[in-house]
Amino acid sequence: MERQAGELFEEFQELTASEFFRKNRQMLGFSGKIRSLTMVFHELITNSLDAAEEAGILPHIKINLKRVGKDHYILEHRDNGPGIPEDYIPKVFCTMFAGSKFRNIQSRGQQGLGCSGCVLLSQMTTGKPATIISAYKEDGELKGVKMSLKMDVKKNKGLVLEREEINPDGTGVCVKLHFKEVSYSLSEQGAYEYIRRTMIGNPHAQITFTDPTGKKYVFKRASNIIPPLPKEILPHPKGVTADDLIFMAKHTDKRRFRSLLTSSLSRMSTKKVKELEKLTNIDFNKRPKDMTWEEAEEIVEAFKKMDFMAPPTKGLIPIGKDQIEKGMKEILNPEFVAATTRRPLTYRGGVPFIIEAAVAYGGNAGRLVGEQRKTEIMRFANRVPLTFDQGSCALTDGVRSLDWKRYGIRDFENAPLTIFVNIVSTNVPYLSTGKQSIAPEPEILQEVRQATMQVARKLQKHIRAKKAAKEEAKRARVFETYIPIIMREAALLAEKEKPDYKPLLQKVTRKAKAELLGESNDE
Amino acid sequence: MERQAGELFEEFQELTASEFFRKNRQMLGFSGKIRSLTMVFHELITNSLDAAEEAGILPHIKINLKRVGKDHYILEHRDNGPGIPEDYIPKVFCTMFAGSKFRNIQSRGQQGLGCSGCVLLSQMTTGKPATIISAYKEDGELKGVKMSLKMDVKKNKGLVLEREEINPDGTGVCVKLHFKEVSYSLSEQGAYEYIRRTMIGNPHAQITFTDPTGKKYVFKRASNIIPPLPKEILPHPKGVTADDLIFMAKHTDKRRFRSLLTSSLSRMSTKKVKELEKLTNIDFNKRPKDMTWEEAEEIVEAFKKMDFMAPPTKGLIPIGKDQIEKGMKEILNPEFVAATTRRPLTYRGGVPFIIEAAVAYGGNAGRLVGEQRKTEIMRFANRVPLTFDQGSCALTDGVRSLDWKRYGIRDFENAPLTIFVNIVSTNVPYLSTGKQSIAPEPEILQEVRQATMQVARKLQKHIRAKKAAKEEAKRARVFETYIPIIMREAALLAEKEKPDYKPLLQKVTRKAKAELLGESNDE
Repeated sequence: MERQAGELFEEFQELTASEFFRKNRQMLGFSGKIRSLTMVFHELITNSLDAAEEAGILPHIKINLKRVGKDHYILEHRDNGPGIPEDYIPKVFCTMFAGSKFRNIQSRGQQGLGCSGCVLLSQMTTGKPATIISAYKEDGELKGVKMSLKMDVKKNKGLVLEREEINPDGTGVCVKLHFKEVSYSLSEQGAYEYIRRTMIGNPHAQITFTDPTGKKYVFKRASNIIPPLPKEILPHPKGVTADDLIFMAKHTDKRRFRSLLTSSLSRMSTKKVKELEKLTNIDFNKRPKDMTWEEAEEIVEAFKKMDFMAPPTKGLIPIGKDQIEKGMKEILNPEFVAATTRRPLTYRGGVPFIIEAAVAYGGNAGRLVGEQRKTEIMRFANRVPLTFDQGSCALTDGVRSLDWKRYGIRDFENAPLTIFVNIVSTNVPYLSTGKQSIAPEPEILQEVRQATMQVARKLQKHIRAKKAAKEEAKRARVFETYIPIIMREAALLAEKEKPDYKPLLQKVTRKAKAELLGESNDE
Repeated sequence: MERQAGELFEEFQELTASEFFRKNRQMLGFSGKIRSLTMVFHELITNSLDAAEEAGILPHIKINLKRVGKDHYILEHRDNGPGIPEDYIPKVFCTMFAGSKFRNIQSRGQQGLGCSGCVLLSQMTTGKPATIISAYKEDGELKGVKMSLKMDVKKNKGLVLEREEINPDGTGVCVKLHFKEVSYSLSEQGAYEYIRRTMIGNPHAQITFTDPTGKKYVFKRASNIIPPLPKEILPHPKGVTADDLIFMAKHTDKRRFRSLLTSSLSRMSTKKVKELEKLTNIDFNKRPKDMTWEEAEEIVEAFKKMDFMAPPTKGLIPIGKDQIEKGMKEILNPEFVAATTRRPLTYRGGVPFIIEAAVAYGGNAGRLVGEQRKTEIMRFANRVPLTFDQGSCALTDGVRSLDWKRYGIRDFENAPLTIFVNIVSTNVPYLSTGKQSIAPEPEILQEVRQATMQVARKLQKHIRAKKAAKEEAKRARVFETYIPIIMREAALLAEKEKPDYKPLLQKVTRKAKAELLGESNDE
């Protein structure tokens, strides 16, 4: 009983992005009650921090989570960012794949799925509209609007149900959403822990959180420095593909190959174009629209043979060694902390990235399981905590690849140890739309390893010093108890006065300590 | 230096799905040269098998992979399926989120991303158009068309560059694509291994593969039975959400709540509607378009209190115990094989699924690493091999959760063992758009565990029997050597004839064997 093709294609459909993710919400990270709520916190906090930073504002976020029924919560998320102009509100919150971050710029968000994903989840689980209040400046004037929105899933668009002008006190956005099928938890993958980790990656932020029991937590900023504004970085010639060139050529307003190249790529001077002309047989006065695939490939091949300065890195803004140490001290109160911010490198030929790593030891470092502190690895991408899918992430793999015994950690899983890794890039290679793990690009893996080794060596010194101090105390006790007696008896035997032995004693123990620390042969 | 909102939103864009995945190709599984090519094989084979099965045709796929330059390949993929009607060709190959499988039906593909993803990768890496030949029947008449297509990424649509009618011999589709930045490999994650695993999950398929060196492999079908056609299953009341009901109500042509429910849900008789009427205060003669969220929630709450028959499972077509064993014997030539097909269950309240599991031991079972055979876990979803992201998959976790020592496998990692797990469902909960791992739904995890235990127990018996046979042989040698001597001497002492001891000897060893096998107290 064979069936004809036409019959099989009767059910053929085209879905919008919203319809697709409505059917596959787990791909936005919305699977499981706890994880779903954490993902909502993640998306909204991420957007608030990006917006404040871009506008040059020290971020202050106020979150209020109310429980109004079994598994039914109302989330109110308020920030002091620049606000969203009225026309863009329905797009930001109800259109998937829409956003302002599809540029070569370092930002936490980069997909245009976050806010609209939260509204979709809210609508799917409660049928309630989203309430958005936005206060923003237009030509210096403060404006405010309150809207009630629904997502038209079949059209991937927002429907404005209600709209009202308001008189705001200052700029910012307030989002109010209902959720069911979610759950608030204090566990490692819960919303509270997500905020705590956010503070480590963003010591310049302040977050006030009122939990469902009404308890108010104030996470104070550990630093008053607004991170410098990241700048858009043009793609580097070594990282560009023929397809990228064709795409640029199609959508440029430049009139010649040469101006297209110098305006669209970094490190691409007119001198470099001349070099290109010698290496290829291409007429660089041609119109970009006429660029053929073969020409694009020839240019890419020539790029490979040419020398370029490394990609500009002014667009990459790491958290910074001092800021990380401040953040970790504030949150973990550890006995020892060391951080490093490495120099920029590139992956896939030309995408710039920076790795930052830190270790905190003792105090509240490590995850408390029962009575025992266990090692925790905190992963960040552009300062955003990555909470899930730790098993298939390049950051985890890099950290675990170290032989931790060599650094004084005998049992790596069970140590009072928090390891922090942050990747900073204009283009973080996430493995999925849920943005929870980093692709195993070899350059990234290697650099995570190097960065972790650097801080692990400092930890090793601290652990050795601690051990040595203990030994010294023990030895000093021995000396202090017996030396006076020996001195006295020796003096008696020699029929001499007992000498002042204390300076000698100190010298001896100092020397022993230096030896134990291995200061002469380390680093 | 604060910036105003308007300035920040100058760069606001809406992307099409094609643009989004062009920027995030790793989310389609296209990361790394080997993996990218395997994903292409995966998408094309998956589509061919689905099409043949739906049309009731025994599938025969012919693949030819040519290498025409360093990292430059031409792939020709030809099937004997029902073909694609001309109008649908550009949509199938150039529109993302378009497909005929967004139904509640068991099929390999379910996202509408596969074929268009392959064309996108081809275009991104070579700039070459895709060539598609489709031969199909329309009103009983055989038609054929050859097309050359490009994807307009900004519009998420296909552009037909050339079109020509042809006279085909039979139905089927032939796809010809150029690729760069891919690589053919014989490794575990390579394209060859992907085909081999496909054969285990689809013993009714035949695949002829010509590799880049010109070597031709014929993977013969192990079975001539076309799997029964899966049928669309209506959602079960226990698995339906308020949002689903509202969505159904919006897009139905029924005129009343009662007819909406009986026509859109399985196990929903008029008797059940009457039960619903008693449990709720809803007027079931109302028009579906007027359904409020509160009503939808009330219905879902009532469903929770009601008893329903389990979801119909006629739509779930497992491979079947015998077919799996045939497939594994054909490919692995093992010393022992056992398979099981479990009864249907549901996850998330009402989504039906079946788990199948098998073990093969000895022969070519297990992965050969150097001289050593190592345990391999082969994961399948609706007969499709899952090759990547094994670390975060519910199927892997279920298999690994067993205490394998209890089943006679002393060193689980290093055994000549192939473990097979297949999940069959109308809605496989993939963790990402790359479709390589299954979400950890508790019911699925538990059932994978149960299924694996069932086959592991059979393996245990085999291993015990093998051990016992060895012991028996050893013991028999002892008996055979000494018993005749003892007999002779005993007969001499008793001054009697030497008796015929052979039947007795056999009986004794049989008993010893049964004891060793533990046949009385096992299963």
